[in-house]
Amino acid sequence: MVVIGHRLFHEPHKVFSLGTFTEALGVAKSTISEDIAALRQICERFQLGRLETLAGAAGGVRYMPSCTPMQVRSLAADLAARLRDPARILPGGFLYTTDLLSLPALVSRLGDVFATFFAEQRPDVVLAMEVKGIPLALMTARAFNVPLVTIRRGGRVTEGPSVSVNYVSGSSRMVQQMTLPLRAVPQGARALFIDDFLRGGGTARGVYDLMRECRAEICGIGVLIEATQPREKLVDRYVSMLTFDGVDEHEGTVRIAPSRWALGETAGE
Amino acid sequence: MVVIGHRLFHEPHKVFSLGTFTEALGVAKSTISEDIAALRQICERFQLGRLETLAGAAGGVRYMPSCTPMQVRSLAADLAARLRDPARILPGGFLYTTDLLSLPALVSRLGDVFATFFAEQRPDVVLAMEVKGIPLALMTARAFNVPLVTIRRGGRVTEGPSVSVNYVSGSSRMVQQMTLPLRAVPQGARALFIDDFLRGGGTARGVYDLMRECRAEICGIGVLIEATQPREKLVDRYVSMLTFDGVDEHEGTVRIAPSRWALGETAGE
Repeated sequence: MVVIGHRLFHEPHKVFSLGTFTEALGVAKSTISEDIAALRQICERFQLGRLETLAGAAGGVRYMPSCTPMQVRSLAADLAARLRDPARILPGGFLYTTDLLSLPALVSRLGDVFATFFAEQRPDVVLAMEVKGIPLALMTARAFNVPLVTIRRGGRVTEGPSVSVNYVSGSSRMVQQMTLPLRAVPQGARALFIDDFLRGGGTARGVYDLMRECRAEICGIGVLIEATQPREKLVDRYVSMLTFDGVDEHEGTVRIAPSRWALGETAGE
Repeated sequence: MVVIGHRLFHEPHKVFSLGTFTEALGVAKSTISEDIAALRQICERFQLGRLETLAGAAGGVRYMPSCTPMQVRSLAADLAARLRDPARILPGGFLYTTDLLSLPALVSRLGDVFATFFAEQRPDVVLAMEVKGIPLALMTARAFNVPLVTIRRGGRVTEGPSVSVNYVSGSSRMVQQMTLPLRAVPQGARALFIDDFLRGGGTARGVYDLMRECRAEICGIGVLIEATQPREKLVDRYVSMLTFDGVDEHEGTVRIAPSRWALGETAGE
């Protein structure tokens, strides 16, 4: 049972046929079935994620990381508390988040949260915008077991034919370029865009345009932190974990709180 | 046993006291001890990694991902075979590897390999050079459960006081700059540098200089692919998975093979 769990937990969303395990373990199919049924109950009872059995020729079992609303709420509350530390205030009213986005166990847990939010969307790829969004996007890609695709700023792609679009970054108010190797996203793919921060949505808007050029489709946008200002975003469908209402550099206060999605006030997206 | 395994596998290298599990599961300490002993045997028998029990007040149990020499060899052989595909040849004799470095299950496995190579080094942080090396470094950081620190090219750091050094990149032969937020690496830290490619070692040399400025120490360098040319590298201690001897653009052949570390011909580093 431990061996089956180890395999399933390590490659989420992959369908393993029961035969995989009868061979590896040298036991009968009926034993494996019983073990899987027991595993499913354990996952449910201890809220470790979901185990799904699929019938038929292509059938088998797969594990899907997933978080309960309570787990999401408590993770968001914990993150907000850590981000309220005045030492995180950077010149210009920015917030130092890089250290948290660099803790593998935390980022991996956040990947599970996004995988829960977007479970129904079944993305084929997860998109990251270089550089700071990459860990979060990679761990979300890991939770879905799909490739990560990293979009580069500027035109610095040396990996064969590429596609570029212009976009206006919210923080700099300047027209910039984002680029992708053409072969990175297959036509018709469903792409989930995960980023660390959303201000005006200019970057996300650019990612929409980029996917249109690739003949692919954005099936969701997830960000760790959204800014409350500006109120009008250039994209209207996204999910965030935290809401950032600015800092007071004089008083040394950071106004950040769990978002309505994290609080479970909406069913997501 | 499944719940214990799930927790341990998810947060490798973290020491869990037995009390953590008696509380979560509501069973006696002796039962937990028995389960852990059984788990250790299973991990050994099915080569899932190592389980270590620590005695004393700070004691408990921790899981360390680790690969057998056979697993490393077969992963390296499989990767080399996939990289020999002539479609991967890029103008200038470069090799397209981005897609493989974007597969979470594969990169996570490679992270386990580096965690095996450097198990004795006990790093405090894992260093990545933006952009392509990040997934590999993050998954290595995950296997060690230590923070990832991303070094930026150029001086574009907006995260408070930073430290920069110059270096000569092997591919461009130009003097460049690499930068790190000063608070990212604590003084005295043991840093493991993980990257996707090593040609002349100019980047790795720069990372050495950067760590000296941070009063930290490089405890190891691991790369996925090293180029055979130039023979003289600017760093002498590193570990690679694959050796790249160039491409023949006319014949469409890629000369790449498992390295001596992957073949187990040396005890590493």
